[in-house]
Amino acid sequence: MTRPRPISGFPEWLPPQRMIEQQLVDRLRAAFECHGFAPLETRAVEPLDQLLRKGETSKEVYVLRRLQAESGESGDEALGLHFDLTVPFARFVLENAGRLQFPFRRYQIQKVWRGERPQEGRYREFLQADIDIVDRGTLPAHYEAELPLVVGEALAGLPIPPILIRANNRKLCEGFYRGLGLDDPPAVLRAVDKLDKIGPVRVATQLAATAGASEAQAKACLGLAEISAGDGSFVEAVRALGVEHPLLEEGLGELASVVDTAREHAAGLLVADLRIARGLDYYTGTVYEAQLRGYERFGAVCAGGRYDNLATAGDDRYPGIGLSIGISRILGLLFGAGALSISRQVPTCVLVALPAEDQRPVCLRVASALRRRGIAAEVSPSAAKYGKQIRAAARVGIPFVWFPGQDGAADEVKDIRSGAQDTADLATWSPPVADLRPTVTAVTKEIK
Amino acid sequence: MTRPRPISGFPEWLPPQRMIEQQLVDRLRAAFECHGFAPLETRAVEPLDQLLRKGETSKEVYVLRRLQAESGESGDEALGLHFDLTVPFARFVLENAGRLQFPFRRYQIQKVWRGERPQEGRYREFLQADIDIVDRGTLPAHYEAELPLVVGEALAGLPIPPILIRANNRKLCEGFYRGLGLDDPPAVLRAVDKLDKIGPVRVATQLAATAGASEAQAKACLGLAEISAGDGSFVEAVRALGVEHPLLEEGLGELASVVDTAREHAAGLLVADLRIARGLDYYTGTVYEAQLRGYERFGAVCAGGRYDNLATAGDDRYPGIGLSIGISRILGLLFGAGALSISRQVPTCVLVALPAEDQRPVCLRVASALRRRGIAAEVSPSAAKYGKQIRAAARVGIPFVWFPGQDGAADEVKDIRSGAQDTADLATWSPPVADLRPTVTAVTKEIK
Repeated sequence: MTRPRPISGFPEWLPPQRMIEQQLVDRLRAAFECHGFAPLETRAVEPLDQLLRKGETSKEVYVLRRLQAESGESGDEALGLHFDLTVPFARFVLENAGRLQFPFRRYQIQKVWRGERPQEGRYREFLQADIDIVDRGTLPAHYEAELPLVVGEALAGLPIPPILIRANNRKLCEGFYRGLGLDDPPAVLRAVDKLDKIGPVRVATQLAATAGASEAQAKACLGLAEISAGDGSFVEAVRALGVEHPLLEEGLGELASVVDTAREHAAGLLVADLRIARGLDYYTGTVYEAQLRGYERFGAVCAGGRYDNLATAGDDRYPGIGLSIGISRILGLLFGAGALSISRQVPTCVLVALPAEDQRPVCLRVASALRRRGIAAEVSPSAAKYGKQIRAAARVGIPFVWFPGQDGAADEVKDIRSGAQDTADLATWSPPVADLRPTVTAVTKEIK
Repeated sequence: MTRPRPISGFPEWLPPQRMIEQQLVDRLRAAFECHGFAPLETRAVEPLDQLLRKGETSKEVYVLRRLQAESGESGDEALGLHFDLTVPFARFVLENAGRLQFPFRRYQIQKVWRGERPQEGRYREFLQADIDIVDRGTLPAHYEAELPLVVGEALAGLPIPPILIRANNRKLCEGFYRGLGLDDPPAVLRAVDKLDKIGPVRVATQLAATAGASEAQAKACLGLAEISAGDGSFVEAVRALGVEHPLLEEGLGELASVVDTAREHAAGLLVADLRIARGLDYYTGTVYEAQLRGYERFGAVCAGGRYDNLATAGDDRYPGIGLSIGISRILGLLFGAGALSISRQVPTCVLVALPAEDQRPVCLRVASALRRRGIAAEVSPSAAKYGKQIRAAARVGIPFVWFPGQDGAADEVKDIRSGAQDTADLATWSPPVADLRPTVTAVTKEIK
């Protein structure tokens, strides 16, 4: 084999980074479960026609083919890798509705794949953590206020910068556009969605071209998009634009409730920001987008919204709401900035030194006794000189080396960092709690 | 959307089953880390030419294609989904050798994909948990004895039937065949590998046809395959067949050491069984295969071996040894037999009852206070009558319902199972430890 090279868009972490990722995932899992979300994994593949229901995303799908597929093989429909966890979840709910209890709260932490062009430098495989709540028939609006609190709480316990969630409401926008006399709200949304990329002048041009907006209508749309507030004051700001529509009122009420609830339970977590559009057109109520504070220009690390029509079959409707955290994206940003570190490269807390190869059974028993008390331990690979064994432990950050007593002498344990060495009783010795497992810490530095 | 149906070969668990799977995975992770194995995940895809290095497996690979791939796109080599975790790991080691410390102990728990024909009813997507140790240049034989102990210890803490690991040694077999005068050991192995499927008579026929074996040689090969023992006595049984070869002696010594170590540290875990061949031809030393006791006829749930030549580039050699646990396979067997159950369908321990919708902020604060003390809690979806809220909790097995005190009265908590209801202090109340999280238990019943 020639020495292999990375594949663009498919990031792989080294073990210390993977340990950081696992601690992040463990924390998210614990928080989601603490909020009553049940775990779920769906298969990596979906029938291609399901993935292509939304034309917009079709270009990003990886299609599968069995290498030895025979032509005319029966029952083998075209499959593609899922590009998010929402579409598979909606499918799972429909498929298993009779075996689920509603409202159904689930979290799902899995890889997703997007066949982006490699030269764009985007991830083609990445890890997402999603929470969703679906109900049968109707879904109460209070979940739109609850979901950001769950994500805020889950991320708050981690050594990463805080997030700011920006929320908008599709009914608010649609009502506003219709109240203005614009009757193709998706076309308006698509144009406004480009505001950050192309600026207000070109958005206005596009509004005229694709949504038939007059200059005054375009100006009003851009005025709406400029409104942002951390409290209910955005409602008055919208009303000051002088547009009226029942759907607008409904959306204003829902978004005000989301903002008020967040203010009460998690001050600083969320603001109303009426330029948030979100590309996918299945959202029907609140939409969310979040950035890491200090990393805003790198884009969203969390996004989602309410979708009323994604899981429907005949008369059965399962409206839902979800938020998705981009784990690979968060870690990619923070690793890139050198903003996270871990106290060692391996889980091992104690290396049991090996006096001679024929002492391996004794050393295996020592390691086994430590493990029975939850202390991660491994036996030295070889009976090299002790100095060499200690240096090997130090290289990967193992904090302690255990020396089995020879010829009736007591066992001893050395803290490699301080050099302190003492006799120790295998039945009772424990490391300081902080050394039991690798610890992740934030590295404070200037962001480039 | 019409109601979707499952895709053959792509199993999906319902949330209670997924909770069981997660507890299994968590236990494996904890055990692996306690033995000093660092976590790793590799990308799902490998270059197709790497996956096809072993011709045998080529028929099982899923190839990827970007739906909108343009012809002549540069730099986009053919990619396939990995069919195991060993080939990607060997590639990862070669790619990152300069950034790893050796011996490198890693575990990897990921989905793998095989494009099996759907009608065979095999999994096409399944979850594996692998541990491997690789070293640079040479790999000491003691790891061949250590690895089964790690797997035995990891699985021993779970409510699943015990496993029996059957071990053999490639050097032992190759030396024996060569000592017999058969000079195509892989051909002999391939024939012997079919012993369980086609029986000794047809194996003998195949040995004659494909390995040029005489009747006496075939009989000796079958005689070797019949030897099995839980202690070192297999060595004498092999010697009694009267074959001599240096490689045979080496293999006998290594396998005896594996068996002796297992006997000392984990009695009953492992036997020498000289019919174990393992299909893939990259193994070069000890090979392992394990079944769940009571489920032997369903095949291997764990397998692996030593591979000296999988990760080599030029003069750099990274010999390794690994064992792979088939998590989907174990759970598929046990779910199918109804052998596992979990105490509830959701992580939630306490449902906070909602007296009226305008009390939701109060109830959110109650749930939040419980969660701060690690008690999973959610607020009732609606302010239905208390009887209805309690029944909804009971349906998913939530053990406790919390009633916020109205008009200055104290809060109360009800154990739904016993019906007992008492006043409770939000700052101090805790559920019994056994109710804190869902508990997985083995269901004892006749195996069908």
